Amino acid sequence: MLGMLVLAGLGQTPSANAQSQRTLNLMPWPSSVQQGSGELRIDASFSVALTGYNEARLDRSISRFFQQLGKETAIPFSSTKPVSGGKATLAIHTDHASKEIQELGEDESYALEITPDGAKLNAATPLGTMHGLQTFLQLVEPGATSFDVPVVKIQDQPRFPWRGLMIDVSRHFIPLDVVKRNIDGMEAVKMNVFHWHLSENQGFRIESKKFPKLHELGSDNLYYTQEEARDLIAYARDRGIRVVPEFDMPGHSTAWFVGYPELASGPGPYQIERKWGVMDPAMDPTNEKTYKFLDELIGEMTKLFPDRFFHIGGDEVNGKQWDSNAKIQEFKKSHNIKSNEELQAYFSGRVQKLVTKHGKSVVGWDEVFIPGVPKDIVIQSWRGQASLAAAASQGYRGILSNGYYLDLGWTTARHYAVDPMGGAAANLTAEQQKLILGGESCMWSEYVNAENIDSRIWPRNAAIAERLWSPQSVTDPVSMYARMHAVSARLELLDLTHRNYYRAMLQRIAGAASPEEFAALRTLADVVEPVKDYNREKLAPAEPTSQTPLNRVVDAVPLESDTARRFGELVDQFIASTCHDADAQARLRAQLIVWRDNDARLQPLEQRSFLVKEVAQSSQDLSALGVAGLAALDAISKGSAAPADWKAIQTAAITQIQNPKAQLLLMPATAIQKLVDAASAGGSCAK
Amino acid sequence: MLGMLVLAGLGQTPSANAQSQRTLNLMPWPSSVQQGSGELRIDASFSVALTGYNEARLDRSISRFFQQLGKETAIPFSSTKPVSGGKATLAIHTDHASKEIQELGEDESYALEITPDGAKLNAATPLGTMHGLQTFLQLVEPGATSFDVPVVKIQDQPRFPWRGLMIDVSRHFIPLDVVKRNIDGMEAVKMNVFHWHLSENQGFRIESKKFPKLHELGSDNLYYTQEEARDLIAYARDRGIRVVPEFDMPGHSTAWFVGYPELASGPGPYQIERKWGVMDPAMDPTNEKTYKFLDELIGEMTKLFPDRFFHIGGDEVNGKQWDSNAKIQEFKKSHNIKSNEELQAYFSGRVQKLVTKHGKSVVGWDEVFIPGVPKDIVIQSWRGQASLAAAASQGYRGILSNGYYLDLGWTTARHYAVDPMGGAAANLTAEQQKLILGGESCMWSEYVNAENIDSRIWPRNAAIAERLWSPQSVTDPVSMYARMHAVSARLELLDLTHRNYYRAMLQRIAGAASPEEFAALRTLADVVEPVKDYNREKLAPAEPTSQTPLNRVVDAVPLESDTARRFGELVDQFIASTCHDADAQARLRAQLIVWRDNDARLQPLEQRSFLVKEVAQSSQDLSALGVAGLAALDAISKGSAAPADWKAIQTAAITQIQNPKAQLLLMPATAIQKLVDAASAGGSCAK
Repeated sequence: MLGMLVLAGLGQTPSANAQSQRTLNLMPWPSSVQQGSGELRIDASFSVALTGYNEARLDRSISRFFQQLGKETAIPFSSTKPVSGGKATLAIHTDHASKEIQELGEDESYALEITPDGAKLNAATPLGTMHGLQTFLQLVEPGATSFDVPVVKIQDQPRFPWRGLMIDVSRHFIPLDVVKRNIDGMEAVKMNVFHWHLSENQGFRIESKKFPKLHELGSDNLYYTQEEARDLIAYARDRGIRVVPEFDMPGHSTAWFVGYPELASGPGPYQIERKWGVMDPAMDPTNEKTYKFLDELIGEMTKLFPDRFFHIGGDEVNGKQWDSNAKIQEFKKSHNIKSNEELQAYFSGRVQKLVTKHGKSVVGWDEVFIPGVPKDIVIQSWRGQASLAAAASQGYRGILSNGYYLDLGWTTARHYAVDPMGGAAANLTAEQQKLILGGESCMWSEYVNAENIDSRIWPRNAAIAERLWSPQSVTDPVSMYARMHAVSARLELLDLTHRNYYRAMLQRIAGAASPEEFAALRTLADVVEPVKDYNREKLAPAEPTSQTPLNRVVDAVPLESDTARRFGELVDQFIASTCHDADAQARLRAQLIVWRDNDARLQPLEQRSFLVKEVAQSSQDLSALGVAGLAALDAISKGSAAPADWKAIQTAAITQIQNPKAQLLLMPATAIQKLVDAASAGGSCAK
Repeated sequence: MLGMLVLAGLGQTPSANAQSQRTLNLMPWPSSVQQGSGELRIDASFSVALTGYNEARLDRSISRFFQQLGKETAIPFSSTKPVSGGKATLAIHTDHASKEIQELGEDESYALEITPDGAKLNAATPLGTMHGLQTFLQLVEPGATSFDVPVVKIQDQPRFPWRGLMIDVSRHFIPLDVVKRNIDGMEAVKMNVFHWHLSENQGFRIESKKFPKLHELGSDNLYYTQEEARDLIAYARDRGIRVVPEFDMPGHSTAWFVGYPELASGPGPYQIERKWGVMDPAMDPTNEKTYKFLDELIGEMTKLFPDRFFHIGGDEVNGKQWDSNAKIQEFKKSHNIKSNEELQAYFSGRVQKLVTKHGKSVVGWDEVFIPGVPKDIVIQSWRGQASLAAAASQGYRGILSNGYYLDLGWTTARHYAVDPMGGAAANLTAEQQKLILGGESCMWSEYVNAENIDSRIWPRNAAIAERLWSPQSVTDPVSMYARMHAVSARLELLDLTHRNYYRAMLQRIAGAASPEEFAALRTLADVVEPVKDYNREKLAPAEPTSQTPLNRVVDAVPLESDTARRFGELVDQFIASTCHDADAQARLRAQLIVWRDNDARLQPLEQRSFLVKEVAQSSQDLSALGVAGLAALDAISKGSAAPADWKAIQTAAITQIQNPKAQLLLMPATAIQKLVDAASAGGSCAK
């Protein structure tokens, strides 16, 4: 059986690919894909050979590859060690070593060619080899007669050199094993920077041998030892991922002051902060002892973290402590510093010099971008592309995080549509555009802990990873959702809990529910989403703290309702058919009946569990949407326009339903409104 | 709020309890339960005090208790250390120590009293304390305003002193962490013996320092080090569980002979066995060197395993190697040994003396019960209660495993109905009945590995644990299923994978299926069960070996279909209503429509995945059942009897459908036949 390559053109896009014989569920989509016909069988004799440059990391990488392939197929392979020379199913050639300490902009390219007789993977460095192995793993499917991979020819390299995920391990501590499985997830989608947000008002999470009171008094005993940090760094390097630590200052630093109140601008004493938000405490930028302390701490931490880049935070100082400190006011006057922004710039400048002295380059949030700052700085923008463009136009490098905040609960499609070269950045010169290094998704942890954090990061982070790796032209959200769905299942094999957490959390809420009650809870939970952006704070029933149990429906449901999204698509399809698509109507009707009848099924459980009672109104609302949707379909079936007053009543009810309840949004409301509008339009429903 | 105890009589049974205000999902059901009104609130201030006897194991037990309580509630507790003296939410008093090496028949009783103001747990020994903590954890529910436990007064102790689970880690190796989480599961349901089946034809799974070729050549490098074994033993002791190791001999021992062929009765050389079944190789019972070897090995292993009991297997020797060995034939003649059974008895007698010499008592399968065997032996019966009764009538102790083989795929209700005191044992004198120590469920591992083993053990093993702990009168299967369902959810918090494995395995089978295709696969998988007893071998498409991937639908589906069981109950309810129950009919109809339409939804996936294609016939059969069931309901609705030839055609089709396909049974067939019969009966459907 010969593998004929169907030349579909270089840079074949995933949507174009949909016409060929097998859908490739690759994410991120490679820069060039040529799909052929036929496939390479995978059985117990599958083998891998390594030629060219080799190192222990590659052997470990092959070992993990076999482990993952074993999970994908359940085949017990005869051997999982690389064979030397000779014929192997997958022949890998790596040209040369990558840097001992992984650097920004190293060659990560690879070429993968699969024929029915075997596969070849070639890469310049182990980084490319590892990326190619992940691509191979994404191609494995149960085929017509066995597990196999399709005939394909892939050339691939990243669009941006900085493709990161930030995890805030400070607001809620995230245990090392949870971080590790997220690193595994990053590898699977070819991200290459783990940004470790290690300090905050709520916790200082890394052991300091120089200043032990930082972690001893500032972490509730929830911190990583230096040995664990080294372990994590090695773990990440094994997966082609750099680790950039962040020590956020001069604000966001209350936890530092518990052990070292002398660093602060206010009198103290301090306690670990339990609340969220921008807090008053800030380091004293006028005290030389602050810089001496930071010099030593940065010295210690730059030794621990080998990466070239060192993140100093720098965001969100409200200046209140500075304003109420006479000494600081005096300093400002005597140094002709006119504002707190200028004072912070002074502080940042001093800290940047310290970082430089210790041989590193600074990364900081927008606020650290101040006149005269050295050119080796990297600006991480939480403010947006305009900030990045402004910096780039002055010769500064930047990465985008605005648009990639995972905690805001946006749809994946919305994150996916954000491009680092979009907005103001699109107008930069080619040279300036090179200064935009990529981006980072950010997982702020006010409302996540070890139990639900994976679900807030995955699978959506795969789409952001694609934005940062794949050609700018890869933008079709339909293809994205389909491929992300497939990737999500594979991520589960890495022990990520982004799928399994859900039933477990619902189970806690349901307690000893009957199967029918549990199903009713799930039906409701499947169509609500947490409120978006920063509305969770605004709508909180009581001020949330780090001690608030994360056990409510809002903590349990995924950020994006697949059920509601698909229902919405079906409604659109139905209306686009001018309400003639009988199959779509039947499916809509079936779903609406389930929703209409669901509240009655859930009510007994509402009586028993306070966590279910909280969503009683949403449950009634869902039933009401079911009733309204069915009425709309009935009206449409009759073929005459529903009366205007009926529409007004329905619309008012739906508007009411669209108000958040228990910090939840009932997602099908919008689609039901469309049905109501269609019914009122009458006849064939289309105006 | 005062907690008034509603005196429901001592020994209140779980079904009687159903009338009171809250269903208690306890399993095993305690020997005495008095339920009151009101509840004890559980919040962040929850605390535990320990008085009386204390030891480090109890502190660890409290730590695990808080961990588990944290998983059940997601409450971050202020402190998870026992408070000394003073007032605590849960006040625990332990009277005295248990034995350093846990013994058969120690006091495991406890008393738990919960009032709205606090809870008291009293126990004679730490074993009882630990059991009481598990009972407390099973009582926690989300209540009307918070998590709570109900007012209740429990007195509890086990019916049998030996309540075990055997895991065969030899046919498929089961990694230590998997064994550990199953030990956690055992603790949750108060089992107290872990029987570790460590050697088999397919593997010798424990490191021997005296005879290293046992594990080095006999395990494919899949074995536990002695350090790991010690770790496991300590882990089990911490949970009130004894560890009884089994070294199966003289048969089931091919793996031993790979490194030590001189032990065998045939010439060798030997390789690790890959197939299943009773094999020819057996130890040479006529060679003194065999006993010298076993003396040393038993000496080594009895030091490693501190338990009083040492299992020597002894089952299933086919005698072929003995028959074809001239020296052995000569030995039999010269020693007046008339049969291979007698020869095995001779061997067992010798080995028993060795075990006794090393200070232990023997446990063996039925075959080791031979005339003149010492009275301290314990017979584990795979043959049945009659064997046990025969032994007991001669003064020998026994435990029952017949009826508790988890690998046979029985319904839980069928296991649950098996009582060690049932059958012939019921006729024993009270004195003789005391010799029946309890029982053990057995997980033989031909068709399980780390991925699906939990699903074959749990939750069904909880019902067997109840049989061995609870009063003999606790037998209602309806209550059992309801409580087992609740316990199953809690077992998931111990990281047991018996629920989560399912979707992951279906995902592998489905590959990159669309959500609709996946749902169709799940609909089918939800109503098939693996063939029962030893039919999997009989119906195997090719001879299965230890290298056969366990990735098929038969490996993925639970042993018991909840969906089919509930559908069957609904059909029974409908027919019992003389087919007048309109709600039941509507629900049946809805389910039947889903089944009828399912095959069309699954077909695209059948084309792509060979693992789905395998169940194509079952999928068509399910659609046919849907059609037949709907036709029956239509006929019933008409109120006149369906014609006899229609019934004959339907019955023939259903009979055909009941034949296993792809080693699977389509479970709704029986219920559909009942509908067809009802339709043919005509009128109100009842004859």
